[in-house]
Formats: sequence, structure tokens, C-alpha cells
Amino acid sequence: MTETETINPTMQREAVIDEIHRAAERLRGIVNVTPIMTSRTLNHLTGFEVYLKCENFQRMGAFKFRGAYNALSSLSPEQKRKGVVTHSSGNHAQAVALAGQLLGIKTTIVMPNNAPKVKVEATRQYGGTIVMCKPTQRAREETCNQLIQDHGYTLIHPYDNINVIQGAATAVKELFEQVGNLDAVIAPVGGGGLISGTAIYAKETGKSTHVFAAEPQNADDAYRSLRKGSIVPQDAPNTIADGLRTGLSELTFRFIQQYVDDIMLVSEQEILETMEFLWTRMKIVVEPSGAVSVAAIRKLQIQKGSKVGIIVSGGNVDLQNYFSSLSRQVHK
Amino acid sequence: MTETETINPTMQREAVIDEIHRAAERLRGIVNVTPIMTSRTLNHLTGFEVYLKCENFQRMGAFKFRGAYNALSSLSPEQKRKGVVTHSSGNHAQAVALAGQLLGIKTTIVMPNNAPKVKVEATRQYGGTIVMCKPTQRAREETCNQLIQDHGYTLIHPYDNINVIQGAATAVKELFEQVGNLDAVIAPVGGGGLISGTAIYAKETGKSTHVFAAEPQNADDAYRSLRKGSIVPQDAPNTIADGLRTGLSELTFRFIQQYVDDIMLVSEQEILETMEFLWTRMKIVVEPSGAVSVAAIRKLQIQKGSKVGIIVSGGNVDLQNYFSSLSRQVHK
Repeated sequence: MTETETINPTMQREAVIDEIHRAAERLRGIVNVTPIMTSRTLNHLTGFEVYLKCENFQRMGAFKFRGAYNALSSLSPEQKRKGVVTHSSGNHAQAVALAGQLLGIKTTIVMPNNAPKVKVEATRQYGGTIVMCKPTQRAREETCNQLIQDHGYTLIHPYDNINVIQGAATAVKELFEQVGNLDAVIAPVGGGGLISGTAIYAKETGKSTHVFAAEPQNADDAYRSLRKGSIVPQDAPNTIADGLRTGLSELTFRFIQQYVDDIMLVSEQEILETMEFLWTRMKIVVEPSGAVSVAAIRKLQIQKGSKVGIIVSGGNVDLQNYFSSLSRQVHK
Repeated sequence: MTETETINPTMQREAVIDEIHRAAERLRGIVNVTPIMTSRTLNHLTGFEVYLKCENFQRMGAFKFRGAYNALSSLSPEQKRKGVVTHSSGNHAQAVALAGQLLGIKTTIVMPNNAPKVKVEATRQYGGTIVMCKPTQRAREETCNQLIQDHGYTLIHPYDNINVIQGAATAVKELFEQVGNLDAVIAPVGGGGLISGTAIYAKETGKSTHVFAAEPQNADDAYRSLRKGSIVPQDAPNTIADGLRTGLSELTFRFIQQYVDDIMLVSEQEILETMEFLWTRMKIVVEPSGAVSVAAIRKLQIQKGSKVGIIVSGGNVDLQNYFSSLSRQVHK
């Protein structure tokens, strides 16, 4: 039975929603129930009633913790004993490391040897064992496979994993619980884990809720895949939204085909303007990938006054240069 | 009857609390009920149970809106008709302008001609009429006095005004309503309006609540005033916390003497480190003056495990350079 078949029949759909509820149970008291932020100015500018689900306030700073914790806690005792491995230089690395620390599971993170020092350090602080490799996709996968062969680790893929997707879906579940039904939900798409979980839950449980993905114009593989009807590989993405540079998997592409109404593209300039708005007007630190879904509301062609929920995916930004510069200016 | 006498007898104390309750009524539905933020890491680092009252999420980005709105809405019809004036290049300017816009009261803001363009623009956008003057305290006061004489404006002083103080006190009132009684409350001290309102309310209604002021070492006039027993003028303050460079008034000094347990000093480096923690770990944009009260928790000598509420005063930071620099880096 393929992954697609598991969600087609009515019975199976209910099973998927049940699994999301079970994920929410596993995460209860462990994840932060992140706050909803609203802004008179944002509502005025957009003409919608906008609710930001602020996963930048999630533990380790991004929604990724939900999926990682759900996946790790769903492992068999044998798998837990042997440990897990993943390859990531981004938020998923920290998410897996923190989940492992909380669950007492050894985590090994394969990272390219040119990964930003601040991300390597953060992952190490959460207890992850770092294994460096050359900065190519092939080197990452080979290093991972070798570790799996040598130690029996279980791979925790950042999005091609149904438990990761179901964990990510708990964010939109909370959002509905916090603000009631929504006319539309927007989430960013990179590898497709967050948008898959968001779309499944919103379509299956919402009342006529539209679901939109938001993607950088400069990394528009999901947009092109949806139009073409088959996966278009991610090719040299040139976007500041570093969390959205990955391509889709078969699993996430099928969820997107089945559940997502459309994909909206945003320019680099729109991402930055939105980030600046979120920082300076709403006073929340949001990373470029997290601003993409908010930026996309400009493209939303639904009735004015509609209730729109937006998943703000994370807030991990390297501000060392900014604060070093401020530090040189102060009078000690 | 002096201001001090008004709050000494029991009857008068109750009257002051009544006035704060009346201020809260006036502000209901107008001010944001700002959220409380907590952090496992902050609790772990400090050993306290810390609740941040995030007035950086207040309208126009700072607690100042509470006092300005309360003061303007407390004016007589005749005063409202004639309009108000204030001198400020900071958050109070924007607060008065916004309050005037909402209440339909003409506001005139005297600003030094070297005020940052971004602050002048923000004040103008809220509907304030800007009158420029030379960048000296004397020029500000003379310009204000001339406007009062010519147009019959009422001066809305940023802190030497009991209505401004009672409006500011509504922040700590909300904090108690949101988290229950607190063992200690910390607020920053500049001119003394926020700490006065905070201290009056917390001491009169809290159960054995300690009240501490936080002040930059490099602008420690309130600290020295409290120790000397009389107002020490603010002399060439050299701090990044631009909202805390003002000196006390007789009114605020007396409130501080009567209600504040102690004043804790923090260095410029401590302010910056705290700001960086708030931005990068808690994902909230806090201005230097707003980080001062959080930085001071390192100096807090009370029982570990105590419940500590901290007023985070504002989040207005000029990030134009930061985003201009990011904008030059993106691939358009």
C-alpha cells in the first residue's frame, strides 16, 4: 500500500486525523502552545482578519520540534536504544537534537563542513553528536547511510516521514482550537512537511477552509511541480529563505496535489519587507522562511474580511554581527 | 496639599488605586492587553519563575500609550477642544500623537531638530503636528511655553503628570490579573513615571510584593537620588537606553522614595547581552530601555524560585540600516 492510498478512502482519512490527534497527545506539555499574534495594521493593510500562529516561539525556535519529537517518540524501544541520525544544517538538526535530549535517545547529525558555526554550536548544545561531511547532497547521504550501516541508527528525514508530517500538523490543530474555523490557511513550502500536515488537517477538519502554500519565487520548484503534475527538482535556489531551498519528496508532493488549493510565489524583496514589518511593527523576530507565508497574503484572492490563519514557521536568525556592531558602539 | 500628602492617609491611598482602576476602564478596548512571555531558559538561568509583561507589543510599541491616552481622555472638554502639546523625541511623542488621533484632540509635539528622522516620521504618521526647536532642554521648554501661551494648549508632561502615571500603572494591574500575585516586580526608571505607577499599584494591592527599579549604571541619577535623599540631576547620561536618559521630577521621586524597595544598576554590556537574549532566544524585539529591567534580574537578591514580574517597556528600535544591508544581499 502506497502512502497515497493510505489517505484516500474515508476510513483512512479518519485514521490520519486520529494519528494527528495522537501526535498532539504525545506533544502535550512538551511543546509550547505558541501564541497567536494579531495586528490592527496588518488587518488594515490586507483587508483580512489575520491570525499569525507564531511557531518562532516554539522550543528551539521553529515548528520543526513538533515533527522531530513526534517521530522520535513513535520509534520502537529497539530503535530508541540504537539512536537516530539525520542530515540537516538547519532547524531540523536542532529539533532532532533537542527531542533526543528530552527522550534520552542518542542523536547524530550529519552537517556540511561549511555549516554556519552558530548552527553547529546550537545543535551541539542540545546534545546532538555532529558528524561533518563535504558540502554536497551526495556526501550527506553517503555519510548518513554509512552511520546507519555501522550503528543501526534510524534515519529521521526532515519531511519524507509521516510521523514528522503528523507532528507538524499539530500547529494548525492548535491554531483552529485557538481562533475557531478559518476561511483560509497559509503555510510555507520547502520540502513540504509543514504544508502537508497543515493541509491534511485543515481540509479534513475545517469547514470549507482554503489551504495555500507560500514559496519564494527564487525557489519555485513546488509551484512548478504542481502545475506540471510531477516533481520538478529544486535547481540552484537563490533565496534568502534558507529553510525553503529543499525539494519535495513523493510523499509530500502527493499530499500537496491532493490537499493544497494553490501555491503563491513571493519575491525576495517582498520577503524582506514582510520581515521588516514583523520585526519593527509587530516586534517579533521571524526568520526569512517564516516571513514567506505572511508575505504571500498580498497574493490572496479571496473575499475581503475573511479569517486567515498563517503559520509563521520559525525565528532563528543569526544576529551575532548586529549585536557585535552595537557592542562596539556602547560606552563601557 | 502636595502630591505626597495625597497618597499618605489610608483614604487617599484607596483613592489612588481607585484612579488606577478608572484609568483601566478608560483604556479598556483601546490599549492592547499585552501578552505575558515566559522562557524555560530564562527561568533556568535566573533561578526565578519569570513573567515578562511585554509592553513592546503595546500600540505604538511602548507602555507610553497607556499614560498618554489616560491623560488626554481625562482633560476637560475645553482643554480637549484647544489641544495639547508635549516635548519628546521618543516614545511619548508617538503615544501622545496616537492618543490625540483616537480621541480627536489636536496634538503638537516639540522635537529637537536633530531627532532621528524615523521617529519624526512615526509621530507625524500618528497625526501629530511637529514643531522643531534647537536641541537643548531650554529651547524645548521655551518652545512649549510659547505654544501654550499662543494657543492655550495643555502640556502633557511625559512623567510629571499623575494621569500619565496612573495610566502607566495599568500595565502592572494587567500583569497581576494575568499571573496572580508576584513576589517581586521590576520596572525601568528614567523620568520615573512607569516605576511610580508600578510601585504604587504593586505595593498597595500585592501581597508582600517587592518592587525594584532598574537603571543603567551610565545614567544612575535615580539610584544616587534615592541614596542621597534628594534629587540628583541627570548629568550627561551615556547609555544606549535612550528612554532612560531623563531625570526625575519631585512627584516621581517622592513615589520612588515611598514605594520602591531598591534600585538595581546594570552595565551597557549587560543591557546588550539581555537584548540579544530576548531577540535570539525569546524572539521578541525589545529596545535597549526595555531590556534594562530584564537585565536587572541578575542583581535580584531574593529567594530562588520566587515569582518575578518584569515590565518590558518597549520595542521601538530603528532597524533601517539592518534591513537595507540585507536588501543589498538578496538576489532580485
